Amino acid sequence: MTEKRPFDILNGSLNNTVVVGLKGGTELRGTMVSYDVHMNIVLEKAQQLVNGEVKRGIGTVLLRGDSVIYISPSGME
Amino acid sequence: MTEKRPFDILNGSLNNTVVVGLKGGTELRGTMVSYDVHMNIVLEKAQQLVNGEVKRGIGTVLLRGDSVIYISPSGME
Amino acid sequence: MTEKRPFDILNGSLNNTVVVGLKGGTELRGTMVSYDVHMNIVLEKAQQLVNGEVKRGIGTVLLRGDSVIYISPSGME
Amino acid sequence: MTEKRPFDILNGSLNNTVVVGLKGGTELRGTMVSYDVHMNIVLEKAQQLVNGEVKRGIGTVLLRGDSVIYISPSGME
Amino acid sequence: MTEKRPFDILNGSLNNTVVVGLKGGTELRGTMVSYDVHMNIVLEKAQQLVNGEVKRGIGTVLLRGDSVIYISPSGME
Amino acid sequence: MTEKRPFDILNGSLNNTVVVGLKGGTELRGTMVSYDVHMNIVLEKAQQLVNGEVKRGIGTVLLRGDSVIYISPSGME
Amino acid sequence: MTEKRPFDILNGSLNNTVVVGLKGGTELRGTMVSYDVHMNIVLEKAQQLVNGEVKRGIGTVLLRGDSVIYISPSGME
Repeated sequence: MTEKRPFDILNGSLNNTVVVGLKGGTELRGTMVSYDVHMNIVLEKAQQLVNGEVKRGIGTVLLRGDSVIYISPSGME
Repeated sequence: MTEKRPFDILNGSLNNTVVVGLKGGTELRGTMVSYDVHMNIVLEKAQQLVNGEVKRGIGTVLLRGDSVIYISPSGME
Repeated sequence: MTEKRPFDILNGSLNNTVVVGLKGGTELRGTMVSYDVHMNIVLEKAQQLVNGEVKRGIGTVLLRGDSVIYISPSGME
Repeated sequence: MTEKRPFDILNGSLNNTVVVGLKGGTELRGTMVSYDVHMNIVLEKAQQLVNGEVKRGIGTVLLRGDSVIYISPSGME
Repeated sequence: MTEKRPFDILNGSLNNTVVVGLKGGTELRGTMVSYDVHMNIVLEKAQQLVNGEVKRGIGTVLLRGDSVIYISPSGME
Repeated sequence: MTEKRPFDILNGSLNNTVVVGLKGGTELRGTMVSYDVHMNIVLEKAQQLVNGEVKRGIGTVLLRGDSVIYISPSGME
Repeated sequence: MTEKRPFDILNGSLNNTVVVGLKGGTELRGTMVSYDVHMNIVLEKAQQLVNGEVKRGIGTVLLRGDSVIYISPSGME
C-alpha cells in the first residue's frame, strides 16, 4: 500500500524534484533534500519559476515552513 | 444519520473530487487522498482553476492547512 | 431569555441560512449544518455572492475558521 | 470611579450602539449584544458603513475577534 | 532614573495624548486611558489622522493589540 | 570576542541609533532606549524615513515587536 | 555525510554569504554571523538587492524570523 498522508508526500519526495509555492506568489523548483515538522524545506539546484518558466537559478535554499502554500512532487501520478 | 461536522466533510470526501480555495486566490480541483488535523491536504490529479476553467495540471500536491480557505466536495448535494 | 453569546448565534443558526464573509472579500450564503470551536463551518447549498448577487453555486463547502471574518444569520431581527 | 480598562469598554457598551472596524477596511455599526474573551462580538441591527454612510443593512452578525481592529462606542464622551 | 522599558512607555502615557498606528495604515490620536498586557488600548477623544491632519472625530475607541504597529506619546522628548 | 547573537545585537545597540523596518514598509530611525523578549522596541528622537530621507519627526515611539521586520544599528561595521 | 536538515543549512552558512528573502519582497545579501531557533538572523555587510542588483548598503542588520521567507547560501552547489 502506498502511503499518501501529508507528511508521507514529503518523505516520499526526498531527493526528488518538487515545486513549492510560497506566500506572495513565488514558485520554486528544486531537489528536496530535507524537511522538518514545521514544513521548513531545503531545496538544492533550486530555480525560481514565473508562469512555469525558469527566471533564475538559486542553488541551495531553505524555505521557512510558515511561508509554504503548496508542495508538488513532479511525476508522481 | 449523515454526519456533517467539519472533519466529517473531509473524511467523507476521501478519494473523491474536491475544490480547494487557498489564500491569495488560487483554486485547485483534485482527488483528496488524505488530510490531517491541521487541514494539511493531499490532492492527486490536481488542476489549477481560474474562473472555474482549468489553467494547468499539477498532479499530486500537498496543500498546507494554514493556507486553506475552503474545501468543497463536488456532487454532495 | 434569548441567549445571544457569540457561539449561541452559531448554535441558533444551525440548519438555517447564513451569510459568511471570508478573508480576501469572498462572501457566501448557505445553510449552516455544523461548526466547531475553531469556527470551522459547513454550509450546504452554498452560493458565492458578489455585491449581494449570486455569482455561482458551490454546493457543500467547509470553511476554515481562521478565514472567517463574520457570520450573519438571515431574518433573525 | 468609571472603569475604562479595555474589556470594561466592551462591558459598558452592552446593548448600546458601537462602530466596529474590521481587517480589510469594513466598518459596521450596530447594537452590541455580547462579546467573549477572544473579542468575538455579536451585533444586532447592524449596518455596513462606507465613509460613515450606511451602505446596507445586515441584521444580526457575529464578528470573529481575530478580524476586529477597533470598537468605538457612540456617544461615550 | 526614568524607566523607558516598552510597557513603561505605556504606563507613563496614561491620561496623556498618544498617536497610535494600526495595521492597514490608519493613524489615531487621543488620550490613552488604559491598556492591558495584549496592548489592547483605550483612547478617549480620539481623532483619525490622514497625513497628520484630523480626518474625523471618533470619541472613545478600543484598539485591539494585535492591530497596533506603534504608539507614540506626544511631547515626551 | 564580540557577541553577535540576535539579542546581542539589540543589547549592543542600547542608547545608539538604529533603523527599524516595519510591516507595511515604514522605516524609522532613532535612539533605541529599550527592548523586551517580544522585540517590542522603544525609540527616542525617532524620525520616519522615506527612501532614506527624513519625512517627519516622531519623538518617542513604542514599536510592537510583531510589526518589526528588521533592525539595523548604524556604524557597527 | 553532509547534513542538510533545515537548521544544518543555517549552521553550515555561519560566517558565509547568504541571500535572505523577507515578507513584502525585500531581498538582502550579507554575511550570516548568527541565528536562533526562531530563525532570527544577523547579517553583517548586508546589502539590499532589487532584481539581484545592489540597491544600498545596510551594514549589520537583525532580521526577525517571523519575516523570513527563504535563506539561500551562495555557492553551496
